[in-house]
Formats: sequence, C-alpha cells, structure tokens
Amino acid sequence: MYRAPVDEISFTLKYVAGLQTAMDEGRLGDLSEDLVDAILTEAGRFASEEISPLALAGEDGTPLSDGVVTTPEGWKELYQNWIGGGWNGLTGSPDFGGQGLPMMLSIAASEMWNGSSMAFSLCSLLTMGAIEALEKHATDELKSTYLEKLVTGEWTGTMNLTEPQAGSDLNALKTRAEPVGDGTYRIFGQKIFITYGEHDFADNIVHLVLARLPDAPAGTRGISLFLVPKFIPDADGVPGARNDLFCSGVEHKLGIHGSPTCTMIYGDGSRGDTPGAIGWLIGEENKGLACMFTMMNNARLNVGIQGVAVADAAYQHALAYAQERTQGRAPGWTGEGMSPIIEHPDIQRDLLTMKAMVQASRSIAYCCAHAIDMADAAEEQGEADARKFWQERANLLTPIAKAFSTDIGVDAASIGVQVHGGMGFIEETGAARLLRDARIAPIYEGTNGIQAIDLVMRKLPQSGGEHVLGYIAELRDIAADVARRNSPEFGTTADRLEAALDDLEDATRWLMAAQSEGKVSEALAGATPFQRLFGLAAGSVYLAKGALAEAGDGNEPRRIALCRFCAENLLGETSALRQAVTGGAESLFNARLALAV
Amino acid sequence: MYRAPVDEISFTLKYVAGLQTAMDEGRLGDLSEDLVDAILTEAGRFASEEISPLALAGEDGTPLSDGVVTTPEGWKELYQNWIGGGWNGLTGSPDFGGQGLPMMLSIAASEMWNGSSMAFSLCSLLTMGAIEALEKHATDELKSTYLEKLVTGEWTGTMNLTEPQAGSDLNALKTRAEPVGDGTYRIFGQKIFITYGEHDFADNIVHLVLARLPDAPAGTRGISLFLVPKFIPDADGVPGARNDLFCSGVEHKLGIHGSPTCTMIYGDGSRGDTPGAIGWLIGEENKGLACMFTMMNNARLNVGIQGVAVADAAYQHALAYAQERTQGRAPGWTGEGMSPIIEHPDIQRDLLTMKAMVQASRSIAYCCAHAIDMADAAEEQGEADARKFWQERANLLTPIAKAFSTDIGVDAASIGVQVHGGMGFIEETGAARLLRDARIAPIYEGTNGIQAIDLVMRKLPQSGGEHVLGYIAELRDIAADVARRNSPEFGTTADRLEAALDDLEDATRWLMAAQSEGKVSEALAGATPFQRLFGLAAGSVYLAKGALAEAGDGNEPRRIALCRFCAENLLGETSALRQAVTGGAESLFNARLALAV
Repeated sequence: MYRAPVDEISFTLKYVAGLQTAMDEGRLGDLSEDLVDAILTEAGRFASEEISPLALAGEDGTPLSDGVVTTPEGWKELYQNWIGGGWNGLTGSPDFGGQGLPMMLSIAASEMWNGSSMAFSLCSLLTMGAIEALEKHATDELKSTYLEKLVTGEWTGTMNLTEPQAGSDLNALKTRAEPVGDGTYRIFGQKIFITYGEHDFADNIVHLVLARLPDAPAGTRGISLFLVPKFIPDADGVPGARNDLFCSGVEHKLGIHGSPTCTMIYGDGSRGDTPGAIGWLIGEENKGLACMFTMMNNARLNVGIQGVAVADAAYQHALAYAQERTQGRAPGWTGEGMSPIIEHPDIQRDLLTMKAMVQASRSIAYCCAHAIDMADAAEEQGEADARKFWQERANLLTPIAKAFSTDIGVDAASIGVQVHGGMGFIEETGAARLLRDARIAPIYEGTNGIQAIDLVMRKLPQSGGEHVLGYIAELRDIAADVARRNSPEFGTTADRLEAALDDLEDATRWLMAAQSEGKVSEALAGATPFQRLFGLAAGSVYLAKGALAEAGDGNEPRRIALCRFCAENLLGETSALRQAVTGGAESLFNARLALAV
Repeated sequence: MYRAPVDEISFTLKYVAGLQTAMDEGRLGDLSEDLVDAILTEAGRFASEEISPLALAGEDGTPLSDGVVTTPEGWKELYQNWIGGGWNGLTGSPDFGGQGLPMMLSIAASEMWNGSSMAFSLCSLLTMGAIEALEKHATDELKSTYLEKLVTGEWTGTMNLTEPQAGSDLNALKTRAEPVGDGTYRIFGQKIFITYGEHDFADNIVHLVLARLPDAPAGTRGISLFLVPKFIPDADGVPGARNDLFCSGVEHKLGIHGSPTCTMIYGDGSRGDTPGAIGWLIGEENKGLACMFTMMNNARLNVGIQGVAVADAAYQHALAYAQERTQGRAPGWTGEGMSPIIEHPDIQRDLLTMKAMVQASRSIAYCCAHAIDMADAAEEQGEADARKFWQERANLLTPIAKAFSTDIGVDAASIGVQVHGGMGFIEETGAARLLRDARIAPIYEGTNGIQAIDLVMRKLPQSGGEHVLGYIAELRDIAADVARRNSPEFGTTADRLEAALDDLEDATRWLMAAQSEGKVSEALAGATPFQRLFGLAAGSVYLAKGALAEAGDGNEPRRIALCRFCAENLLGETSALRQAVTGGAESLFNARLALAV
C-alpha cells in the first residue's frame, strides 16, 4: 500500500526545487523549515493512513440514480476529515480562511493525496481551480458568498468546458447564457466529462461554466464564464433553492472509478422554478477564456503531479512485490531456494527506471511550483523583472510538468504491472488499477499533444527565445558542476548530461528557426518528441542536482547512483528524439499516404 | 470495428516472410497462391463479420457458479460456427482431420481472430498447443482417442503449468501424480491462471497438466506431463464419467474479460467416484518439461501475433476516429470549420508510429512462422543442414516475435487511447478495452523479461554465435539493396538502417563476449534493451524489404514512405538501446542501493 514519500518530497522541494534558498532569502514570508516539515509529515500521515486504506473502495464506482450520485463507501467521511484538517485551504487566501502557503507545499501535499487515490483527490483539484478563478476575477460580492466555503472545502467546485462537439477546441462551444436584467443570467446547455459534477461530499457544488452570450462574437472571443451553483445561497449564505441543473449521466471509464465523471444538463426546466440555470458572470463578458486559463494553468501542474504520484505508487507497489516474490535463482544468489525477483538484473532495471523517472518528473513539477511562488513573491515586492522572469519560467515548465510527468505515470504503471507478472493482470493485486488510473492524466486538462503545441508555439518564443536558452544554460551549469566534481561514482554522467543538453539546445534552436521561417507544420510535427526530450534532459539534470546536494552529507551515495543509472541507461534517448524533431518532419508528411488504407 | 487487413497480411506473407518463394520452390507441397488467397479472404471475412460484432459481448465476463462457467452471449454459437468452418484444424495433421497447412497461414489466420477478439481466440490457441504436444509425444492410443476431437475443435485443450508458488520457475511445482498400476495416474493439486480451464464451448476439455511422480528428482527434471480430461471418454470415444477436477474460481482481470482464467482443483474427491483426477502420461516420465516446451514454443509465436493483432486493431480504431473527429484548424487546412484531427501533424505522428510498428512486428512474426515451416519442410526432405539452419532461425526469432510484438501491442493500444482524447477513457468507445486486453500479452507464455533472457542466453550462442551473425548479415544485404536503389523517396533510410544494424551487431557481439567471459549478470542486465533493439532493427529492415518489393509495382510508394518515416523518426532509438546494453550494467548494479528506500 502507498506510503507518502515524505523524505524524498522534502529533499526535492528544499534542494532541487529551491524551497530552502527561497526560505533562507525570505522570499516566502515567515515560512520556516519547521513548519514545512510539520506540514509534510502530517500530510504524509493523512495520505498513508487515512486515504490509502480507502482507495480500493473507489473501484465500486459512483452509481447515479435520479440525478443523485453515491460516492464510494467511507469517502464522504474521509472528505469531511480531510477538509477538517484544513488541507483544502493550503494555498487559499487568508482573507477567506486559507493558509496562504506557497504552491510548492500545495503540490507536495497534492502528490501525497494523489499517490493514495487519484480518484478521491480529483475533487479538490477542481475546487482549487475554482478558488483561483474567483480570487482573480470575481466580484467582491461573489467572493464573499462563495470563496470561504470553497477555501474550507465545505463546498466544492467544478470546471465546465467540454461539450460533445467541443473538446480541445472551444470555438465550437454552444452552451448559451441569457442576461435576465438583474445581474444574473440563465444558462442553457449540456456539458460532458464534468469531474465531480455531482456527489454527496458537500452541501453545495459551485459550477464554473463556459457559455456564449446572445450576439457574442463567434469563436473563443465570444465565450464568457459563469458561476452556477447547485443550490442558490440565501441571504445568510446557506444553500437554498435548487438551481435548474442536474447530472444526467455518469461515465463508465477505464480508471479513476471513484471519481464521478458527469454529464451536466443546464436549464432544461426539470429543476428549479423557472427554466434556465441561474448564473453570475465571472470577469468580463466574452473574456471567459482568460478566466478559465487561470484555472487551467495550475490545474495542469496539478495533473502533472498526479502523473508523478501514480508513478511513485506503482514503483512502491512493484518494489514491495519484487522483494517478496521468489522465482528462479539470480546469478550470484547464495541464499537458499529461489531468490526474490529483485535479485534479477532485469527486474532491477525495471525498478530503477521507474524510480529515476519518478524523481525526474517530480523535480520538474516542483521546480515549476517554485517558479510560480517566485513570480508571486516578485509581484508582491513589485519586482517587475523578476516577476517576468519567474512567470516565464512557470509558463515554460508547466506543459512539461503536465505532459512529461503524466507520460511517465503511464510508463511506470505499465512497468509496474509487468514486474508483477501474472499477478499484475489480476485486479485485486492493485497494480492494474494504477495503470487504469494513470491513463487519464495524459488526456485531461489539455492532451499531452496540446501541451506540446503550447510548449513549442507559445513557450519557446517567450522573450524572443532568450528565456528557454537561458534555462538551458542554467542546466548546463549543473552539468558542469558534475564534471567539476570529477567523482568516479558519477561514471560518465557529466558527458551524458552535456550530450543530452546539446540535443535539447539543437532541437530548441531548430524549432525556433522553423517558426521564424513560417514552417509551422514542421515545428508542430516535432512538438511531441521535443517535449519528451525536454523532460528527459531537464529531469536528468535535476537528478544530478539532487546528487550533488547529497554528495557531501556522508550518507550512501544513492542519489549519485540513481543519477548515473539514468544518465548511462535512459538518457541516450535524447539523441533519437532530436533526430525526430530536426529531421523527421519531411518523412512524416510524405508518409501521410501510408495512412490512406 | 476491426476489419481483418487481408491485403496487408497477404503481402507480408508473400513478399516479406517468403511464402511466395517457398511456394515457387515447391517447399510447401502443392500449396498454391489461389488456395492461400482463398483461405486468407475467408478467414478475413469470418473475423470481420462474425467475430468482431461479438467482441464487446465479452466484456460481460464469464461468471462461475457451482463449477460451471458461462461464456459471453453468442460465443458458444460463434465457436461452433468457427470450428464448423474448419478453422481449428488449419495446421493439424491430415491423419486426424486437419488440413496440414503451413504455420504461416495459421499465424495469419490467428492474427485475424485475435484482431477481432483476443479473449475469444485464446481458446483455440491453447487447443493448438495441446494438439502439438499430443502429435509429438503421446502414445498412439491417446492420439486415436483425443487428437481428432482436438483438431476439429470439438474438444478443447488447456495448459496447466502455474501454481501459486510456481510461475516462471517450475522448479517449485507441487502438483503430484500417483501411478495406479493400470497405466493411469491419479493427479492431485491446484493450478492457477488456466485459460479456458472451464467453459461451455465444447463437450469435453482436455487438460495437459504438469505434475511430479513419487520419488521424482527435485527441480524441473522431476516433472511429468499428463493428459487429464474433464470427462473420461468411453470405449466409443464419447465423453463419459466425470473426472475428479473442477474450476474453483475465475479471476477478475484487467482485460480479456471474455476469456475465463480458472483456478483448477485436481483430485480433491469432490467430483468423480474415487479421489484423484485420472490422467495419462504424455511422453516419458520426468520429461514433461520437454513436452511442455513443444506446446510453449509455438504458443509464444501465437502470443506474439496477439500483440500484432491488438496493435493493428488499435491502429484501425484510432485512424477511423481521427478521420471523423474534428477539432481545431490544422496548419494548411482549407476546409470549412474545424479540421479532422488526422490533419494535425502530431496525430499523424501517432498514427504513423502505430502503423509502422504494426507492420514491423507483423513481419518479424511471419518470418518466424516461415522459419518453422522451412524447418519442417527440410525435415521431411531429410535435409539436415537446412533443418538445423531453419530451426535455429525459428529459435532466434521466437522470443523477439513474442516480446517485441507484445510490447508494441501495449504501446500502440496506449497511443490509440491518446488519439481518442477524452473519449479514449470511456469504455464504450472501445479503445480502452484494447489497452486492457493488450496488457496481458507481455506477461503470459513467459514474461518478456524471460524471453529476453532466452534470447541472450540460449539463442545468441546457437552455432557458436554464427547463426545470429549470419542473420544480421542477411539484414545488411537488404539495407544494401535500399542503398543501391538510390531513390530519393527513401530519404536517408539506407544510412539509418546501416546505423541500426551496426548497433545491433555491436550489442550482439558485446553480449556474446560477456557470456564467454562469464559475465552472466552483465549479459542479463542488457537483455531487455537488447530485445527491443533487435526487434526495432529487424522490423525496420523488413519494412524496407516490403518497400523494395512494392517499388516496382506502379502503385503509390506508400510502403517506401512508411519505411522512411520509421527510419527517420523511430529508428534512432537503437543507439540509446546499444548504449544501455554495452555500457549500462555497471551503473545498474551500483544503483541497487537506490532501491533500498
């Protein structure tokens, strides 16, 4: 069963992502190491001891009957205990009952919740998005009615984007909003894939819904964002009249069975007094997409951390099995009878691959959270240049943190099934569930293909390309530190890192040149291999950063060993990926005809 | 819905695997191209029109009640129709009602059944294994009682190896067999993971069971193989008395839900008159493992073809969706509104990757089947050298055909889910089912890790290493043909193939040297990356072979285009894999300490 890796998370936050330096420099207010440790330890305890034991209950699904969704046994109480611990309000504004802690801690806690149960933890991921959108864009009146309830978790939030004809492309959105004249709107339409659109955890559900106003411009410039509560709060903020919306269906999914994925019907007249779900505008008319992106950006990082979490859960599961299960006699085995399968080199390779990729993707995600925190700190201090720098860093790392980590989640979960042999295919073992759960993360919050397009088309050109090149130069400094250390324990790590960074820089420059020459298709053709190349190279450098930090502490050099394994066994892929980016487009376009049949 | 790719299979058989030449040279008796085409066409029709529509019914599972398994609705009739068409007896001996056709045709048909439904088709895969074991090792009496019924498919067969403590390592086997004195034995024990161990397709089920005789030597030299029928045939061969065996449980699995995976209890006294399931020895006492390997070798190729089949099914599914689903506007799209997602370069990359890997893995599997057929033909002709050569070729290609293809099955099915976006996660879409089904194939019939060990430790050393080096030289000849063709349509394919074959040869020689120096652990550490390297390089060369065969036929050069895509976008991975094989072991062993925590 999953145990939250508190020490590993703490080390990564402090010495790889930069939490320690940020605290030392006073960039994070009065946040102390003691408080950080206390939060991580208690979150780890809650995840390991409270959530993990109830994870399997989620497999029974979330049956729907007459618009009412029943959540898995024990989860309603679990949710109450979880918000009772104040976990929902970690990053929320203190003005509304939140703790105002940095994103780094929020992401660290999120990793632990998701490692225990992705399905359970999804609910709060959506609520956090709603909180951010309201904090940044809602009127004071809406804030005072909704924010505190959302920050505490007493009410939960949802994101309503997708319609059957409009997934990634929101141009095709049809849900409409009609102004009533009293400041409210009536919402009519159908939304699909609404996570926790209906459930019994909370007294109210606050739906954020994208819809079109009458006479709104076509396309995404005609989309507005509305707050549409399940129950309309009365003057005292107590949930009152039922709004005209309901859940008409719950999807039968590959994984995350404990999380209800709802089809939501707005305004068909079947609920409430008057047809049309009552909504309030958030932000300006026709500027809904910008508001929604506020929610989505951090949601992307949060989905990325799901990939890290499920990969680590799969690693822990496989490691425990490999230590226990005996089969065959590995070379050099001197014990009696069969050896534990962890003694077989092939199984060691599987486990080390999982562990290295967990740690690499975790590092990227935490560095992204760090950048978000640094941008916020700079904004508070009025440091415009630093603000711009860190915001660009967060922008750059977000698609990688989302896509690379969630691809790793699937890879690791699949290896985890394999390590279990035949038992891996049996549902009761639990390894298969992790693969089923992991498979959603590369899809939702923008498919990983969309992330790759975002990375290449919008993030590389930041500051005329200077930001990404500066980032690569920072990574080269770390690789150079490894070379300077000149320790035999690192093997050929320094050379391998250099080669990978050469691949990354070549591919980056090629993509930027392609764009400036108007070769958009060519750039897009290389986007996905580039994203993987970026994640592999950056993640491996972060393994080295951790290894360097560990090197002097007198412990066993296990981070160095893992970093070297990664460099000498996994990092060679960057060369192939660079080839695909810089030399693959023509053959890709030519081969279109091979798809005809 | 899956359509059997009859033309593609026919082309691959004839011009890549060598069926055409073999027929032209008269190595396959009087088999004619007309007959081949007729068989493939009719098998394709049956797969597409009869099996495919019933595939989803398998998702309802196979409930067990009082030892009776109920198969999915319509499957019993489907099975009767299928054996009625003579499909079960394709390769069986004509002496027992079979058609005596080559393995190439059997594998081709098997691809089509499995593309339609892996779960349904598994039943016959096991029966075929039982037929082979009986043909080669059973007494004439057993043959006359059982073979014809198995060849027609009137009865089905099973393989009973695994016990809870004995998966890959059969040393740990505990099931026992006691001689009765009348030529029969009484079998006692529990077997798990028995595919189609109980079902309602057929009047009788013929279990082949590994067990130990009293005083048998310890380890695998003390294992014997027994035939244990569910019902004991009477003097007329009609199923009579119930034998003392039953199915005590059916597993709840990740995929292949229509295939009952049974726990079988032998000899607990609950069925039959006297405790102990009655069995008959197959082959010699204590030589059961050799008999079982007869079954397993071809079963491995058959599982490999499942990987090909499920990958192709996933490709077809994703292609159809990508042609229909519209989202966004791809660069260069001039149509109205959103473009079909196939217009996006990223989606094209996904689809081309799937297609190239389907075709590469298919080619390897069919070449393996060709080698088996050539070995059989040589044996019939008494050509000892040719027999040895082709048997070694089949031996070499079997682990690759099993492991590479089934890894590709999982990879392709996962990409297929991704291409579907959110719909891919919804079970009704069907893409998720293919991923769930695909995931078993790298595990059963010897995990892919076991295949890699077999490849490195037993197959490379054949004929002192000369066989594998000769094979690589053959692949080089094909690459050289591409270079000689000097056609711009091939792009840099020839160079890429040469580089990949250099990687393959380097890694091969390194592994052989490691073994001869006694560095067994080092060789084992590289086994899995080597296996993938081998499959990628050989499969890509086979794409080139097909492209060369197509080049003169006046059609669109779509095979050349696919081959070039593969060479320029996917084949670069061989360099990374070579690095892992030849330079990765030390860091792998050092990193063991990173797993401690």
